Amino acid sequence: MKERTAQVRWEQRTQQPLMALAVVFAVAYAVPIVVTPVGPGLARACTTVEWVVWGAFAADYLVRLGLTERRGEFIRRHWLDLCAVILPLLRPLQLLRVISALMLVGRRARMASQVKLTTYVVGSVVGLLMFGSLAVLSVERDSPNGNIKTLGDAVWWSFTTMTTVGYGDHAPTTGLGRILAVGLMLSGIALLGVVTANIAAWFIARFEMDDAEERRQTEAIQSLTEEVRRLRAEVAALSTPDRSP
Amino acid sequence: MKERTAQVRWEQRTQQPLMALAVVFAVAYAVPIVVTPVGPGLARACTTVEWVVWGAFAADYLVRLGLTERRGEFIRRHWLDLCAVILPLLRPLQLLRVISALMLVGRRARMASQVKLTTYVVGSVVGLLMFGSLAVLSVERDSPNGNIKTLGDAVWWSFTTMTTVGYGDHAPTTGLGRILAVGLMLSGIALLGVVTANIAAWFIARFEMDDAEERRQTEAIQSLTEEVRRLRAEVAALSTPDRSP
Amino acid sequence: MKERTAQVRWEQRTQQPLMALAVVFAVAYAVPIVVTPVGPGLARACTTVEWVVWGAFAADYLVRLGLTERRGEFIRRHWLDLCAVILPLLRPLQLLRVISALMLVGRRARMASQVKLTTYVVGSVVGLLMFGSLAVLSVERDSPNGNIKTLGDAVWWSFTTMTTVGYGDHAPTTGLGRILAVGLMLSGIALLGVVTANIAAWFIARFEMDDAEERRQTEAIQSLTEEVRRLRAEVAALSTPDRSP
Amino acid sequence: MKERTAQVRWEQRTQQPLMALAVVFAVAYAVPIVVTPVGPGLARACTTVEWVVWGAFAADYLVRLGLTERRGEFIRRHWLDLCAVILPLLRPLQLLRVISALMLVGRRARMASQVKLTTYVVGSVVGLLMFGSLAVLSVERDSPNGNIKTLGDAVWWSFTTMTTVGYGDHAPTTGLGRILAVGLMLSGIALLGVVTANIAAWFIARFEMDDAEERRQTEAIQSLTEEVRRLRAEVAALSTPDRSP
Repeated sequence: MKERTAQVRWEQRTQQPLMALAVVFAVAYAVPIVVTPVGPGLARACTTVEWVVWGAFAADYLVRLGLTERRGEFIRRHWLDLCAVILPLLRPLQLLRVISALMLVGRRARMASQVKLTTYVVGSVVGLLMFGSLAVLSVERDSPNGNIKTLGDAVWWSFTTMTTVGYGDHAPTTGLGRILAVGLMLSGIALLGVVTANIAAWFIARFEMDDAEERRQTEAIQSLTEEVRRLRAEVAALSTPDRSP
Repeated sequence: MKERTAQVRWEQRTQQPLMALAVVFAVAYAVPIVVTPVGPGLARACTTVEWVVWGAFAADYLVRLGLTERRGEFIRRHWLDLCAVILPLLRPLQLLRVISALMLVGRRARMASQVKLTTYVVGSVVGLLMFGSLAVLSVERDSPNGNIKTLGDAVWWSFTTMTTVGYGDHAPTTGLGRILAVGLMLSGIALLGVVTANIAAWFIARFEMDDAEERRQTEAIQSLTEEVRRLRAEVAALSTPDRSP
Repeated sequence: MKERTAQVRWEQRTQQPLMALAVVFAVAYAVPIVVTPVGPGLARACTTVEWVVWGAFAADYLVRLGLTERRGEFIRRHWLDLCAVILPLLRPLQLLRVISALMLVGRRARMASQVKLTTYVVGSVVGLLMFGSLAVLSVERDSPNGNIKTLGDAVWWSFTTMTTVGYGDHAPTTGLGRILAVGLMLSGIALLGVVTANIAAWFIARFEMDDAEERRQTEAIQSLTEEVRRLRAEVAALSTPDRSP
Repeated sequence: MKERTAQVRWEQRTQQPLMALAVVFAVAYAVPIVVTPVGPGLARACTTVEWVVWGAFAADYLVRLGLTERRGEFIRRHWLDLCAVILPLLRPLQLLRVISALMLVGRRARMASQVKLTTYVVGSVVGLLMFGSLAVLSVERDSPNGNIKTLGDAVWWSFTTMTTVGYGDHAPTTGLGRILAVGLMLSGIALLGVVTANIAAWFIARFEMDDAEERRQTEAIQSLTEEVRRLRAEVAALSTPDRSP
C-alpha cells in the first residue's frame, strides 16, 4: 500500500472544515447584499467574516506548501490557488474576492476523490448562479442606468444568461457586471457541453453493446478452441495405441 | 420465466386508464385558461375534474405502495411521486399542480417498456410546451406589467424559450411565471442535448463499422483457424499409416 | 447484380431536371418578394411558374406511384410527399407552398446516393435560410406592427434565429411568420447538433486509434499463431522419422 | 528519415517571424479604432504598416509557390490563401482586410504540428472576439442608428453573440457589421461544438475502458493459448518415447 504523505493527510482532514467555512463565507457575502438597508455594524461584521475565511484558505495554502516535498512543482501546479489567495489583497480587485473564494472552494472540492465530474459541474453551476446573481446585484444596483435592482431580477437574469436564452429584459450595464456575466455565459456553454456529453456517452455505450463485429470475433475464437480440443483428443488417441501393444 | 409480481400487473393494467385521465386533466386545465370569460359553473367543473384526476393518481400511488413487499425501498425510489402527490395539498403551491400532474404522468409513462428515451424526451418537450404556455398565460395575464396576454403569445414565447433563442419580445414578469420559464429553459437544454447525442451516436456507430484494427483481428483469427485445420489433417495422416499396416 | 426497377431508373433520370425546376421555383418565388413594386404581369407569370413546377412534382409523384409494384407500401413510406403535393391545393395553406416545395426537393435530393448527411444538412440550412427569409418578409411586410420590412432585415433575422442568438431587434409578429420562425429555430437546433456530432465523431475516432486493449488482443493472437506454427513443425518432425526407417 | 523539402524548411523558418508580423498587424489595426480622435499622421502610419504586413504574407505565398514542385496542386490546395492575398486589393472589400489577415495567420498557425485542434479553436475564438469587436466598432461607430459606440460595448456585444446569448441591448445595424456578426455567430456554434465534443470524447474514452466484451475475448484467447501449449507438451511426450527405444 502507498504511504499517505503528510500533505494528503492534511488535505483530507481539513476538507470538511474548509467546506463549512465556504458556507459561512457565502452567508457573510449574501447578507449585506440581500438585507437593505444594512446597518454599519452588520456590514463590518460580514466583511470581517469574509476576511477571516480568506485567511483560513490562505493559511491552508501555506501549510500545504510547507508539507509538500517538491515546492517548486507545488507552486507551478497550484498557481491558480496562489492567484486566488493574492487577488483580494489588490485594492481595485477586492470586488472580485467572491470569484477568488469560488475558485479556492472549487479546487479543494475537486480533490475529494468521491466527487465525480458531473457532480462537480452541477455544483459549480449552482454556485455560479448564486454568487453570480449576488455579485451582479451588488454592482448593478448602484448603477444609474442599471436594470437589475432586486434579488429576484438578478436570479432571473442569471438563469436567462446561463441557459444562453438571453431575453435582454435585464442585462448588466457596468464593466464589472459584464465581466461577471461573461463568466456565467462561459459556464453555461460548459454546462450545455456536459449535459450533451453525458447523454451522448450513455447513448453510445448502449449502441456498442450490440456490436456485431466483436460478437463474430468471439464466435470465431470459440469455434477455434473447439477445433484445438478435438485435435488434442486425436493426438491422445494416437499416443494410446502406440504404447499399449 | 420471471414471475410477475402483483405490483407489476397492477402497473400494466392501470397504464392506459391513467394516460386517458392525464388527457382529461389536460383538457380541464386548458379550458378555463383558453375560454375567456369563463363562467363560474365551468370553472368549478374543471377544478373538480382536476382534483378527481389528482385523486386517481394519489390512489394509484397508495395501491402500488400497498402491493409492494419492500415499502421502505419503494418510498425511497419513488420519492418524487410522493412529492407530486402531496404538493397540490399545500395551499400556496396549488398553482404548481400542473407540474405535479406532468411529473406523475411522466413517471408512469416511463414505466411502459416500449417507450424509448427519444420518444420520452420528445413527449416531455411537447407536454412542457403545451402546459408551460398555458401555465405562464394564466399567471402573466393578470400581471399589470405582463406582456403575455394571449394564447398565441404564450405558445410563441414557449418556443423562443425552449430553443434558447430568447428574442425578449415577450418574457414573464412575475415570480411564478419565471419559475415556470426556468423549467422550460432547462428542458430546452436537455432537448438540445438529446438531439445532438442522437446524431452523434448515429455518426459514431457508422464510423466504427469500418474499424481497421478489428478487421485485422478477425483475419488473424481466421488464418489461425486455417493453420490448426491443416495441423489436424497432418495428425490424421500420421495416425492412419500407423494403424493400417 | 441487382436488377434496377423501372421506378429506380425513373428516379435517377428525373433527378437532375427536377433539381433544375427547384431552382426555377426559387427564382419565381423570390422575384415578387424582392422586386417592389411588382407589376401585375410579372406577378401573374411568377405564380404560373410556381404552379407549373408544383405540377411537375405532382406528376413525378404519380409516375413513381404508377411504376412501383407495392402501391400501399409506397404511399405509406412516402406519405410526406403526398402531403406536400396536396398541401398547396387547400386555399388557406397556399402561403405554405414554399414549405411544400422545400419538402419535395429535399426528399428527392436525399434519394441521390452520393449526397452525404452533412451535405444534406448544410444544403437544407442554406435553403431554409433563403426561403425562411423570403417567406417571413412576404408575410411581415404587410403587418402594421411588423419590424421586418426589407430583405436585409429578413436575412439578418434568419441568421440570428437559426444560430439561436435571438437579439430581438427584429422578430415576427404575425401567426404565419411565427410558424415559419419555429421551423427555423428547430433547424438551428438540428444544425448545432450536426456540427457538434461531426466534431465529436472525429475526436472519438482519433481517440480510438490508440486503443490499448485491442492491440494487446492482436499481439495475443499473433503469439498464439506462432505457437501453433511451432507445433506443426514438431508434428512434421515426428512423422518423418516414423516413415523413413 | 524523410528528406525535408525546401518548401517545408521555408515554412518552419518563417513561422515565427510571420506570427510576430501578425501581432504587429493587430496593433496597427487596433490603434486607429481605439485611439479617438486619431491624428492623420498616426492613421497613415498604421495603414502603411497594415499594407507592409499584407505584403509580407503575399511574398510568403509566392515563395512557397516557387519552392513547391507541383504548382497546380499547391494552388488548388491553398486556394483560400490565394483569395486572402487578393481580397484586400479589391477596393470595396478593403474593410474586410482584417478577415483576410485572420485567414492567412490561421492557416499558417495550423501548419505548426505542435498546435492541437483545441488550441487552434481557442486561439481562433480569442482572435475572432478581438478583431470582431474592433471591426464592428469601426463600422458601427459612424452609423447614425448604431448602438455600438465604445470599445467596451463592442467587446460585450461580441461575447453575447459568440455564446449565442444575444441580449439585444447592442446589435449591429449596418450591412457590413451584420456580415461580421454572422461570422461571430457561426464561430460561436463551432466553439460550442468543440467544447461539447471534447467533453463527450473524454467521457466516452472513460466508458470504453471497462468494455466487458473485449475483456472476455482476451480471456478466451489466453485460455486457447494455454490449450495449445498443453497440446505441444503432449506431442513432445509422444515423440520422445518413439525415438528413445
